[in-house]
Amino acid sequence: MKTNKKIAVVLSGSGVYDGSEIHEATLSLYAISKHGGEYQIFAPNIDQHHVVNHLTGEEMAETRNVLVESARIARGQIKDLTEFKANEFDAILFPGGFGVAKNLCSLAFDGAECKVNSAVEKVLKEMHEASKPIAALCIAPALIAKVITGAEVTIGHDEGTVGAIEAMGSHHKQAGHGEVVIDTKNKIVTTPCYMLDATIAQIGEGADNVVKTLMEM
Amino acid sequence: MKTNKKIAVVLSGSGVYDGSEIHEATLSLYAISKHGGEYQIFAPNIDQHHVVNHLTGEEMAETRNVLVESARIARGQIKDLTEFKANEFDAILFPGGFGVAKNLCSLAFDGAECKVNSAVEKVLKEMHEASKPIAALCIAPALIAKVITGAEVTIGHDEGTVGAIEAMGSHHKQAGHGEVVIDTKNKIVTTPCYMLDATIAQIGEGADNVVKTLMEM
Repeated sequence: MKTNKKIAVVLSGSGVYDGSEIHEATLSLYAISKHGGEYQIFAPNIDQHHVVNHLTGEEMAETRNVLVESARIARGQIKDLTEFKANEFDAILFPGGFGVAKNLCSLAFDGAECKVNSAVEKVLKEMHEASKPIAALCIAPALIAKVITGAEVTIGHDEGTVGAIEAMGSHHKQAGHGEVVIDTKNKIVTTPCYMLDATIAQIGEGADNVVKTLMEM
Repeated sequence: MKTNKKIAVVLSGSGVYDGSEIHEATLSLYAISKHGGEYQIFAPNIDQHHVVNHLTGEEMAETRNVLVESARIARGQIKDLTEFKANEFDAILFPGGFGVAKNLCSLAFDGAECKVNSAVEKVLKEMHEASKPIAALCIAPALIAKVITGAEVTIGHDEGTVGAIEAMGSHHKQAGHGEVVIDTKNKIVTTPCYMLDATIAQIGEGADNVVKTLMEM
């Protein structure tokens, strides 16, 4: 396993209900670092779809920016996704969280007919065309399935999301805690994480397995 | 090692510059779960001292609540710190981040003369009087040193903070990446984490060592 791989990590905010799922994001960065890799974090410089009070689940009358909030997870070390260059990275990874389905695309509202943020779409297509591996956790595999039609991914077994993935022209494969689904043709690696009822130890296992698989590709 | 220990984790917001350091908080929860323990997350229901834009480092003209923002790390599973009962827990853990020195106490502004949030002080004194172990990462050991005078802790080797800890009547011991300082008399376990220039893999090592030590006490 080449251990000095450089991996781009794309965030969608900071907090499961309106941004990146914090445990999945952090444990992905941890796995990259632990296995000797390097990461650069990116996020689109756009307003969040909305802001959710994570204590009550209610929407808040506020505006927050995806790049600015993602910088909380990145400790300020983050770049605007428009600065991404595929030739600088060996692989790309998308943690989950509702931010993927609300900010990076409109999956949470439009299902299979969702629109994808233009910077996100460009980055995914560039990596796919360069035949570089793409990893996604939790709900993020559905975003990959939309952009790279014919992809085989897992989001666990949520029926609605499985239906959306199939309607996009991609394929879903069931998987359990920590299990990784590998689409060898498209070099796509996915795992369900919090799409299943999981402990944080199981999230760490899933992130670790995805990152190890990514580094071996 | 008794592995089913129940550990209270006290957060101070969500983001290193105005709240809890997200990697330290997440990797502490991960270590507790991985080693078979359980956790309940708490935070005080108070306004943050201020809100910092983590992309630019500038203060933002906003008000955010410590409990509401901490709920992002907790995925909504969090309690007001005033609900804490020492008899329900085997140990307590404080991750770092400027939120500890700005929201849980006024260390960032007042040094050794800092004031401590009343709920935080009560919780720490109850656990200490019950002779239950207390863990702290990064800058949080300075908070412990203020409340439990005579404590021996580490925050790495930052001169200003070391001076403040000694001026509080407590003692500082230098430590490196992943190293744990144990005050056996007071049952206090501390490690420097991001008080040193660290990788996230080193933060994981520090959190893991602290949690293992806590569970063995």
